[in-house]
Amino acid sequence: MGKGGKTDGGDGFGDASRDDVEQENMAAWLLGVNTLKIQPFKLPNLGPRDVLVRLKAVGICGSDVHHFKNMRCADFVVKEPMVIGHECAGIVEEVGSEVKHLVPGDRVALEPGINCKRCELCKQGRYNLCPEMKFFGSPPTHGCLANQVVHPGDLCFKLPNNVSLEEGAMCEPLSVGVHACRRANVCPQTNVLVMGAGPIGLVTLLAARAFEASRIVVADVNDHRLSVAKALGAHEIVKVSTNIEVAEEVAKIKEAMGTRVDVSFDCAGFNKTMATALSATGSGGKVCLVGMGQRELTLPLTPATAREVDVIGIFRYKNTWPLCLELLRSGKVDVKPLITHRFGFSQKEVEKAFEASAGGANAIKVMFNL
Amino acid sequence: MGKGGKTDGGDGFGDASRDDVEQENMAAWLLGVNTLKIQPFKLPNLGPRDVLVRLKAVGICGSDVHHFKNMRCADFVVKEPMVIGHECAGIVEEVGSEVKHLVPGDRVALEPGINCKRCELCKQGRYNLCPEMKFFGSPPTHGCLANQVVHPGDLCFKLPNNVSLEEGAMCEPLSVGVHACRRANVCPQTNVLVMGAGPIGLVTLLAARAFEASRIVVADVNDHRLSVAKALGAHEIVKVSTNIEVAEEVAKIKEAMGTRVDVSFDCAGFNKTMATALSATGSGGKVCLVGMGQRELTLPLTPATAREVDVIGIFRYKNTWPLCLELLRSGKVDVKPLITHRFGFSQKEVEKAFEASAGGANAIKVMFNL
Amino acid sequence: MGKGGKTDGGDGFGDASRDDVEQENMAAWLLGVNTLKIQPFKLPNLGPRDVLVRLKAVGICGSDVHHFKNMRCADFVVKEPMVIGHECAGIVEEVGSEVKHLVPGDRVALEPGINCKRCELCKQGRYNLCPEMKFFGSPPTHGCLANQVVHPGDLCFKLPNNVSLEEGAMCEPLSVGVHACRRANVCPQTNVLVMGAGPIGLVTLLAARAFEASRIVVADVNDHRLSVAKALGAHEIVKVSTNIEVAEEVAKIKEAMGTRVDVSFDCAGFNKTMATALSATGSGGKVCLVGMGQRELTLPLTPATAREVDVIGIFRYKNTWPLCLELLRSGKVDVKPLITHRFGFSQKEVEKAFEASAGGANAIKVMFNL
Amino acid sequence: MGKGGKTDGGDGFGDASRDDVEQENMAAWLLGVNTLKIQPFKLPNLGPRDVLVRLKAVGICGSDVHHFKNMRCADFVVKEPMVIGHECAGIVEEVGSEVKHLVPGDRVALEPGINCKRCELCKQGRYNLCPEMKFFGSPPTHGCLANQVVHPGDLCFKLPNNVSLEEGAMCEPLSVGVHACRRANVCPQTNVLVMGAGPIGLVTLLAARAFEASRIVVADVNDHRLSVAKALGAHEIVKVSTNIEVAEEVAKIKEAMGTRVDVSFDCAGFNKTMATALSATGSGGKVCLVGMGQRELTLPLTPATAREVDVIGIFRYKNTWPLCLELLRSGKVDVKPLITHRFGFSQKEVEKAFEASAGGANAIKVMFNL
Repeated sequence: MGKGGKTDGGDGFGDASRDDVEQENMAAWLLGVNTLKIQPFKLPNLGPRDVLVRLKAVGICGSDVHHFKNMRCADFVVKEPMVIGHECAGIVEEVGSEVKHLVPGDRVALEPGINCKRCELCKQGRYNLCPEMKFFGSPPTHGCLANQVVHPGDLCFKLPNNVSLEEGAMCEPLSVGVHACRRANVCPQTNVLVMGAGPIGLVTLLAARAFEASRIVVADVNDHRLSVAKALGAHEIVKVSTNIEVAEEVAKIKEAMGTRVDVSFDCAGFNKTMATALSATGSGGKVCLVGMGQRELTLPLTPATAREVDVIGIFRYKNTWPLCLELLRSGKVDVKPLITHRFGFSQKEVEKAFEASAGGANAIKVMFNL
Repeated sequence: MGKGGKTDGGDGFGDASRDDVEQENMAAWLLGVNTLKIQPFKLPNLGPRDVLVRLKAVGICGSDVHHFKNMRCADFVVKEPMVIGHECAGIVEEVGSEVKHLVPGDRVALEPGINCKRCELCKQGRYNLCPEMKFFGSPPTHGCLANQVVHPGDLCFKLPNNVSLEEGAMCEPLSVGVHACRRANVCPQTNVLVMGAGPIGLVTLLAARAFEASRIVVADVNDHRLSVAKALGAHEIVKVSTNIEVAEEVAKIKEAMGTRVDVSFDCAGFNKTMATALSATGSGGKVCLVGMGQRELTLPLTPATAREVDVIGIFRYKNTWPLCLELLRSGKVDVKPLITHRFGFSQKEVEKAFEASAGGANAIKVMFNL
Repeated sequence: MGKGGKTDGGDGFGDASRDDVEQENMAAWLLGVNTLKIQPFKLPNLGPRDVLVRLKAVGICGSDVHHFKNMRCADFVVKEPMVIGHECAGIVEEVGSEVKHLVPGDRVALEPGINCKRCELCKQGRYNLCPEMKFFGSPPTHGCLANQVVHPGDLCFKLPNNVSLEEGAMCEPLSVGVHACRRANVCPQTNVLVMGAGPIGLVTLLAARAFEASRIVVADVNDHRLSVAKALGAHEIVKVSTNIEVAEEVAKIKEAMGTRVDVSFDCAGFNKTMATALSATGSGGKVCLVGMGQRELTLPLTPATAREVDVIGIFRYKNTWPLCLELLRSGKVDVKPLITHRFGFSQKEVEKAFEASAGGANAIKVMFNL
Repeated sequence: MGKGGKTDGGDGFGDASRDDVEQENMAAWLLGVNTLKIQPFKLPNLGPRDVLVRLKAVGICGSDVHHFKNMRCADFVVKEPMVIGHECAGIVEEVGSEVKHLVPGDRVALEPGINCKRCELCKQGRYNLCPEMKFFGSPPTHGCLANQVVHPGDLCFKLPNNVSLEEGAMCEPLSVGVHACRRANVCPQTNVLVMGAGPIGLVTLLAARAFEASRIVVADVNDHRLSVAKALGAHEIVKVSTNIEVAEEVAKIKEAMGTRVDVSFDCAGFNKTMATALSATGSGGKVCLVGMGQRELTLPLTPATAREVDVIGIFRYKNTWPLCLELLRSGKVDVKPLITHRFGFSQKEVEKAFEASAGGANAIKVMFNL
C-alpha cells in the first residue's frame, strides 16, 4: 500500500506517536479452532470516501469468542483465515479526497458494517438487514483487531472531547441495547424486564435507563451479574434458577416490578428465559429476543400472541453511533464499569484476552489497548 | 322484563312479522359436552343506551364448536349452562332513551364484546385486550344464538341497504381478517402468504385482497379448500403436506410468490405451519399468528427474529365493524361464498348445524336463519 | 380532615337529593366579565363509579383567565354562570359502590375531562378529541374551584406518597407538555426548540427533559422567563425580539442549538414565533403548535412542508396522569418552582389570585390552597 | 436498436472520454426564459454501477414549465444552460460491470433523483430529503429530455411486459400521489378530499383509489377537470369558486362526502384551498399540502391544529417505483387517460409541446416520444 501516512497525529487524547506508520500493518488472524495469530494484514487502497484509522481500542464480543472456539457463529462460518474483531475506535491517519468531516488526528469510533446502499432494505432505512452487508470480523469479511484499517468515512464518527477511545469502542455493544430499545419503543412510561445480566443484558439495561424506562427489573441466575446490574441502575434484581418453574419465576418478577411489564428483553435466548418473558409481559406488550442461546425454541407462544404480546428481534443496529456518543458525552450512560479486563496487542496478550473473555462470569468486557 | 316492544318493525329487508315479541325468548344453551338445548332465556332490562335486537342470522364459529365439544376453548372454560354464539345480525325492536342513531326496524350487525371503557387498555384504544371484556358466548357471558338479545347501542351497527343480515353476521369473522391485516400493516405493496385455507384463512385472504396486497399465496393440505381460496382471489395456491420438510415447502411457496414474502399469516397455528411462515418471510417482514392449533410451539424462532421478522398475534378485533360494512357495501369483499350451510332455529336444526360445522372440511360457514 | 362522607351513594342511576353534605359546598362562579363570586354549588348524586373529592389545591390556567376576562376562550363561550377551574387535586371523601381502586382519605389528582367513551374517536383511543367531552370549567361544564366535586373514579389518580397535592394539581399543565412531546415523538436523540417560556413553554421544557431530548433551546422575549427556563434545565436560551427579522432569529437559534433542530414547540402561537419555528426546524422534522396566540396565521408554510416539516397540534392530552405522577414521584420532573403564587379560597383571595395570574410576566402558576 | 455500446466500462472512477457513441447525443437545453434549444449533450462515462439509457418517453411536468417560463421553480434557480426534463422511460443500451439486474434491451423507468446515500437522512430511509440530491432537470443538474442519459442502475426499474414506455414515464408523477397517500396513511377506511383536479390532483386521486380509500371527493373550479376526475374514479365531484366563502364550500364538500373527511390533499396550495381543507377535515385527521400555489399562506391554522388535524407536506417521493410499476401492471391504476398530448423530439415539436403544456386547462400530461 503505497500511501504516505505522513500525518502527525493529534495532540489531545490518546495520541500515540505514529512514527510506526511505515511499519507493516499487523492483525489478529483466526486460523482455526482456538487459534489466533498476529500476522501481517495488507490494507486496500484508500478510496476517495475512505479513512485510514489506527486502532487504539478494540473490544471482544461474544460472537468473536464463538468464532474463536467454533469457527462459526449462528449461520456465519469461517472458511478462510480471517482477521477478527468488530468493536473499535482509533485515530484517523489519512482521509480520502472527498471526506470532509474528518481530518488526520481525529479520534473516531467505527460502525463496523458496510451496507450496499442500493437494495430495497437499504433504501428503506433498514440497512442493518442488507443482504450484501460486509461486517468487520463476520466471515468472510476481515475484522478490526489490527493496527490499522481502511473504512468508509461515513461510518467513522468523531468522538466528543470527553469520550475516551475505549468508550468509543463501547459504542458497538451499546448500540445493540439502543437498537433494541428503539425497536421495542421504550419510553418514559415503559416498565422493562431484562432477562439475563451478561454483557448484552447490561448494555440493554443501560440503554433502557437512557430511554427513561419507568422501572427496570433484571433477572439472572448469577449473583455477581445481578449485583453489577443493580450498580448500573436496575431498579430491582431477581435471582432466577434453572430448577424453578416458569410460573414461579414470573410471580417473583411481577412482584419485583410491582406493576405491569410492558417490554421484556430476553438477553439470554433459552426456552426458559423466553417462556418467562412471554408470560411476564402484559397484554399488548412486547418481548424482544436479543440473546441467541438456542436456535430452536419450545415456547407457549400462542397464549402470548393471543394477548397481542408481540415478539420482535433485532439484528445488530442502525443509526446508533450518533446517539451513543451523545449519551456518553452527556454522561447519561457510563460504560466504563463494563470494561473489566484490558490487554495489549501481542500474541501472548491476545491469547490471554480470549481466554479471559471465554472464561468466567465475572468478565464483562475485555478490551485491547493497541 | 316489563318492556312493551310495541314497535311495528320495518317494511324493508328481512322484516319478519313481530307479533311474537310477547312470546318467551328462547336461546340455544350449552349444557354439557355435545349438549345444546333450546330453552327460555330471560333478558336483562333495557338500559338507556341499550338496544333490544331480534336476531335473524347467527353464524357458528370454530370456538363455538370447541365449546360444544369440550366445554372449553383455549383458557375459557364453560362452568355453568351458557347461551352459545357470537356472530350475529338482526332487527332492532326497541332502543333505550339515549340511543339516537338507531330506531326500531333498523337492521344491525352486532359487535359481540362489551369492554369496560375505563381501564388503561380501553383508554388507549386497545379495547379488545380489556381484562374485563364481556363477550357473547365466551364463558361466563351468554351468547346470541337466541330470538332476542339486549346489547349496547354503540355496538350495534346499521346495515347498508344492500348488505343482507347474513352478510351482517359475517362481519364478525371478517373482522378477524381485517384486524390481522391492520396489525400486520398490509398495504398495496405487501406480498402476503396465508398458511391455512379454513374459515379464518379465507377471511384473512378476503381482507388482504381488500387491503390491496400485491400478491397473495395461500397454502393448505386440502385441495378443496385451496380451490375455494383460488376462487376467492388468491393469486397462487400451494399444496403443502405434513410429510414434507419445511425447507421444501418454503421453496415451493417462494417459487409461487415469485418475489419476497412481506407478511405471513399463520391461520393454522402448528409447529409446521409456523416454521414454514417464519422461514418463508423476508428480512424485516412480519408473521402474524392467527390460528391457534397448538398452545406450545417448537420453532426456529431465533433465526427469524435475527432477521427482524416480527411475530405478532391478534386477539379478536377492534373498530372493525364500520370498515367491514363498507367493504361489503362497496362489493370490495364478498362473503357470501363462505356461507355453505344454512339451518333454522329448532332443537333438531341446531344439532344438525353443529354436526355440520364440526364435520367435514367442506363446511366453511354454517349459518342459522332465525 | 373534617369530612363527613355520610352520603349513602344511591344504588340506581343517581336520583337521590344530596342534602346530606354536612356543610354547603361553595364554588367560584364566573358570573360575567371580570366577575367571580363564591357561591353555593350543588353537587350531583354520587353514581356507582363516581368519587366525591374535597379539593385541596386548584391552579389557575391561562384559559381560566381568558374566560374571566372575556367570557370566552377560543370557540368556547360562557353563556350561563359557571364554576371555573380545571387543575386540581384533593382528598377522596366517598366512593361509589363499584369504585375499587380508591378509599376515602386517598389523595388524588383529577383528570378534568369526561369523554363519552362510545364515539369513534373514544374507541380509537383519541378520547381527547371526543365531540361530547365534558371538561371542568369549559362552558357549559362546571369546573373544580370548589370545596368538593363529584368525578368519575377512573379519572381520579392516587398520588404517590412523596407527591404533594399541589404537585398533583400540576399534573394538568404538565400533561400538556407530555402530550405535546408524545405527539412530536421526542426521544433521546431529539433536539428541541421551545418558542415561548410562559407556563406552557415551561411545562413543555420539563416534559422534553423527562423524555431525554438531547438538547433543548428555549427562546423568549422576556429575560426573566428565560432565566427561569435556564434554571429548569434548558441547555441554551435565546433572547428574541419583535423587532428582529425571522431570518436573524433563526440564525441565533441555530447557533445556540449547534446542530439540527428536530422538533420545535411553538408555545406562543403568533406569526413570528411560528415562522421562526418553521424555518428553524430541519428537513423531516416537526413543528408542534401548542400556544394559541392567534386564530389566523400568515406563514411561510409551503417551504416548510416542502421539506417535510410536519405541523402538528395538540388538544389537551390523553392518558397522561399515570406518567405525570411517575415523573413527579421519581423526581425526573420538579414542578414546584413553577408555583409562584398561593392564595386561599375566599372571595377576596380569589379576586387577588386572578389579578396576579392575569398580571405580570413573573407569575407562572397561581395556586389555591383550599 | 442501433445502439453502439462499445465502451468497456472503465476500470477506475470514470475518466475516459465517451467518443464512441455512434451519433451525437442531443438534448433540450433551457437557455433562457421561454428559450429551449436542442443541442448536443455530452454524457459522462459509464461507471461500473451505471446504465446507459436511450430515452423513448419523456413527460413535461409543471415544474419544467416553471423553469421554462421563469428560469426558476420555488427556490431552485437556473443559472447556467441546463437540459430539462425528469419524467422518463427508455431502453437500456449498456450496463456497467457491476449491474446485474438489467441487460441491454430492457425497457426501464428512471427514478430521477440521485441521493448521496451517506447523510443522516439517507441512512434513515428519508432519502428524498437528502441535501445533496442531484435530480434530473433541477438546477444545476441536467435533465433527461435527451436521446440518451447515463444513470445509476439502482434507479432504473425494469418495466413489466404489459407496461408501456409512456406508462413507465408516468411513474414519476404517479409517485407524487403514492408518496402523498403513504405519508397521509391512506387505507381502506379513509375518506379523502382532493382539492384541485390538475395533473397532481389527478395522480393523487389515482393513488388514493389504489390505496382503497373508502370515498374520494374532488373539488375544483373547472368543469372539465372535474369531469376527468369523475371519469378517473372520484366518488363525488364538487364545483368550487373563488367567489364563495370557505364555510359554504366546506358545507358542500361535507355534504358530498356524507361522512367525515379523514385526509385532505391540497393539490393547489392557495389560501382558499388550504383553508377549505383545514376546515373540512375531521378532528384527528390530516391535511397534506401537495400543491405549491403560494409560498406564504394566511390560514385559520390554530383551530385546525387544536382539533389535532396535522398538516403534512411532501417532497417528491421515495421508494415508489416498484409500487407504481406493480399498480400499472395489475391494472389497479390506469394512467393512460392522463396523457392528452404527444410530440416528437425536434426543435419545433419541443416548442409546441411546452406551449401546449403551459396553455389550456385541458392539457393534463404532455408526452414526448423520442
